[in-house]
Amino acid sequence: MATICGLSIREYCEKAEQFHGGHLAPGMVIAGFMVELARRNIPEGTLFEVICETASCIPDAVQILTPCTIGNQWMKIIDVGRYAMTFYDKYTGEGVRVNLDAEKMKDYPAIAEWHLKLKPKREQDTEALISAILEAGEDILAACRIQVTPEFLGKRQKTVGICPVCKESFRSSEGTICPACKNSVLPYVSAPAKAESGR
Amino acid sequence: MATICGLSIREYCEKAEQFHGGHLAPGMVIAGFMVELARRNIPEGTLFEVICETASCIPDAVQILTPCTIGNQWMKIIDVGRYAMTFYDKYTGEGVRVNLDAEKMKDYPAIAEWHLKLKPKREQDTEALISAILEAGEDILAACRIQVTPEFLGKRQKTVGICPVCKESFRSSEGTICPACKNSVLPYVSAPAKAESGR
Repeated sequence: MATICGLSIREYCEKAEQFHGGHLAPGMVIAGFMVELARRNIPEGTLFEVICETASCIPDAVQILTPCTIGNQWMKIIDVGRYAMTFYDKYTGEGVRVNLDAEKMKDYPAIAEWHLKLKPKREQDTEALISAILEAGEDILAACRIQVTPEFLGKRQKTVGICPVCKESFRSSEGTICPACKNSVLPYVSAPAKAESGR
Repeated sequence: MATICGLSIREYCEKAEQFHGGHLAPGMVIAGFMVELARRNIPEGTLFEVICETASCIPDAVQILTPCTIGNQWMKIIDVGRYAMTFYDKYTGEGVRVNLDAEKMKDYPAIAEWHLKLKPKREQDTEALISAILEAGEDILAACRIQVTPEFLGKRQKTVGICPVCKESFRSSEGTICPACKNSVLPYVSAPAKAESGR
């Protein structure tokens, strides 16, 4: 009987549904198999970190099944839109990359139709899709050894300071004005009003 | 007795420690109070989404205490290095931004010393720091009403395709070659070797 990082498939699906906002996304089921495959290819006891190549679904499977989270920064997202994740030794950079294999997916038309958006969403049979994903398991995945570059492994030095514009503290490697004030990257309309902070 | 989204402080700290990799980071405790303050300022029943202004700690508190995760993309990170989060109505964009207030933090020297890295890490008394954070609670936070821009609220259309270079499927709004192949943004040394995928 297949397991996902020591959990039964059912246990994993329940956890995935609960953490991911109350809905069992098909991508979360695939991502569970990806994490299991990646972990099996990392030697027991390795202190590993993770790179996700998309923000969609797979970071949640990593966060449920490993100690790596976005907030502790043992998991990083470099969003290039590919359904792939890399687990690597945090000291040596040796690791394994697991991805959804477009060629292998052809053997499972229901999965390909969903993933490649070949069918309108309203025509999709989610139950049949989840069944196909459970049947496929690791058959639609590929794995290869990978070496993460030394520059990526080192900790980047960041300064901490108070921004002279917004008066807030910030951490950055980009100078004395915080990136929010310098680059106006936040999607806020200006002139914020004070909210109630008292209990 | 103060609570954090319906949990006792102790219950929250246990969850935070477990999710965040087995260590109760001081930033996770502050972030718990931030989520509580933000949620109190959003009308009950609002379907909300979250923007975190740093990847450090606070996204994990959001993921523990709300249905918003990085993988379901109801939480987004725009990393400008500021210790701040915005909760907003996903349809109207009306929301509240909560941040660590550098001015108010001056009343709690142990917190300021830690947050602004004024003291070498080895000289820090983590237990005293956590106590100071629990004592301060929301006193070191500021909250203001904010309006998220309409452009940010809409779903960005992404195409799904097979990249002609890597032969993998990808989702992007950037054309027919995947961003990984086009921009070489991934920190991998080339020439990957096949890993074992069989059980």
